[in-house]
Amino acid sequence: MTTFTQVLGRISPVDTTLAATVQAHLDNLTKPRGSLGRLEEIALRYCLARDATQPEMGKKVIYTFAADHGVAAEGVSAFPPEVTVQMVKNMLGGGAAVNVLARQAGAEVRVVDIGVNSPLDDVAGLLRQKIAPGTGNIARGPAMTGAQCRQAMEVGMELAAQAADEGVTLLGTGEMGIGNTTPSAALFAALLPCAVEAATGLGTGITPERLAHKQQIVRRALEANAQDLTDPIGALSAVGGFEIAGICGLILGAAARRVPTVVDGFISTAAALTAWKLCPEVMDYLFFSHLSAEAGHRQFFAQMGVLPLLDLQMRLGEGTGAALAMFMIEAAVKTYREMATFDTAGVARKESSS
Amino acid sequence: MTTFTQVLGRISPVDTTLAATVQAHLDNLTKPRGSLGRLEEIALRYCLARDATQPEMGKKVIYTFAADHGVAAEGVSAFPPEVTVQMVKNMLGGGAAVNVLARQAGAEVRVVDIGVNSPLDDVAGLLRQKIAPGTGNIARGPAMTGAQCRQAMEVGMELAAQAADEGVTLLGTGEMGIGNTTPSAALFAALLPCAVEAATGLGTGITPERLAHKQQIVRRALEANAQDLTDPIGALSAVGGFEIAGICGLILGAAARRVPTVVDGFISTAAALTAWKLCPEVMDYLFFSHLSAEAGHRQFFAQMGVLPLLDLQMRLGEGTGAALAMFMIEAAVKTYREMATFDTAGVARKESSS
Repeated sequence: MTTFTQVLGRISPVDTTLAATVQAHLDNLTKPRGSLGRLEEIALRYCLARDATQPEMGKKVIYTFAADHGVAAEGVSAFPPEVTVQMVKNMLGGGAAVNVLARQAGAEVRVVDIGVNSPLDDVAGLLRQKIAPGTGNIARGPAMTGAQCRQAMEVGMELAAQAADEGVTLLGTGEMGIGNTTPSAALFAALLPCAVEAATGLGTGITPERLAHKQQIVRRALEANAQDLTDPIGALSAVGGFEIAGICGLILGAAARRVPTVVDGFISTAAALTAWKLCPEVMDYLFFSHLSAEAGHRQFFAQMGVLPLLDLQMRLGEGTGAALAMFMIEAAVKTYREMATFDTAGVARKESSS
Repeated sequence: MTTFTQVLGRISPVDTTLAATVQAHLDNLTKPRGSLGRLEEIALRYCLARDATQPEMGKKVIYTFAADHGVAAEGVSAFPPEVTVQMVKNMLGGGAAVNVLARQAGAEVRVVDIGVNSPLDDVAGLLRQKIAPGTGNIARGPAMTGAQCRQAMEVGMELAAQAADEGVTLLGTGEMGIGNTTPSAALFAALLPCAVEAATGLGTGITPERLAHKQQIVRRALEANAQDLTDPIGALSAVGGFEIAGICGLILGAAARRVPTVVDGFISTAAALTAWKLCPEVMDYLFFSHLSAEAGHRQFFAQMGVLPLLDLQMRLGEGTGAALAMFMIEAAVKTYREMATFDTAGVARKESSS
């Protein structure tokens, strides 16, 4: 049996019979019931994902997958394609935003070359999992073959399994790839589904004129690959990217090991959407970190009826939103684990008449 | 000259001529311009408040002011009044939510007895600044005298000055006081101003029937003290509370020393509103941590045109929202201070044609 089929076979919905015990503990902590708001919801979801009423918070790791995109040749980004490899080096040097925010949140950043268009042989600290030096141009044909797509997903699945083995209890997703809001928009349009105009935004900061062009490219990608868009893996192979497939695999692999994953922004959410289409149970193991300023992100939350934790008008990717949300999740779990109860602290309960 | 007049005389608007230098540095960091969203706005505001283009992040301290309220006798809260002193002891023991969240954010919690209705002589670790054992019942007359109000404000002002002297560069506010959403609602109604119905919410979780009663009590407080509501100090003395006055003083004292303050939730915002009415320049030094689930809080942000950092449906007070927001602010300042620039990291800039 392949990693791929093993992982999908192992993902099961969380055991909601634990919820009553968790809720009773939450209600016994020295605070008015429900007064920690979403922190209580986070603590409950973390317990259910970990299948434990008193789960530990272990290591926290963000995997940032980097890859290049053939569609960058169509001029869909404000930055030149060589920025992918330059930013990989910046991340390995600790100078990118995700490094600073992860340090602050006590999380480790691991950078994965899953498809950068540069050998990167001489670069230390990189996880080398390159499938190919960039995808095909989705405006003219498929991004990758079905075999490459599974291979990229298995990279993510195996990283998740290794992380679970070393005691990681919270994973974060991140990505770097010039041009990658374009395949993400195509995936939202194909799988959510939604209109191309709603899915396609300004990315790293293109002009309104270039946005019209980018929307045209997304439309062309959907037309050129129309026959492959009927199933999630088909769509991911046809209009996705190596880093998106890697993140999709990480999310699924983590759920198979009961490790919850914090989904970063727009591109990571395209991967989460694909994972959910493949295996709806995966949603029990996901935290959506923030609402990106990238316009299409709002579409996902509106249609899925879920609410991200933060809205800071960020649109950087890399795992920056995941890092901030990891702090929130750890804070929520710590209140659950470390707060005094009414009895131990000798605090009077709410009056029954109120 | 008293502490009071000295502090008010020392608060000046921030020097916005620094903004161009700060913005140029933000735009030179390895990220698309503006892509860190509100983190960039936070970094800029922190620089301006500290009057420095490369400010350090020093110690972070949350002052949680505790006091009792005569109006609790009117049955406005879901919890009995003795919970104030019980929660003070819980906080000193490290078991309250604010302790857990502050530890997680790397901030210290200091609990100030500014008016608890209990001697607390035998309790270690408490800052003893009691003005009186609880306020008068605002439904029947003033909460405190004008002299007591200034005294309570000066407690906060002096704590802020001491904190600045010991290297604190970010302060947080917090409070504990059964019944204190009632005086806070009265202050919003009087000073914002807004309708009593809009200002008055469920507090720690009263029933809808009791909410109608609570609104009636707020109305009665405004009538009983009508002659004193025309100026901020008059209103604070008449319908406020010792912890609200202490927080108001802390905010002003911190601004006088160029130390920004993170405002917690509904009650702390009533103190911030009073401080702003007294000295509008203080707004340059404030970060509003979160939108409380307490209904009246939304009214403040709508009317003031400011946006809190977080919306986690919390309604606990103590400084819990401030602790979470302190993490965000430190994270923002660290990205500003620690990220690589395009030049040092050898990353290409945005293409000019985009």
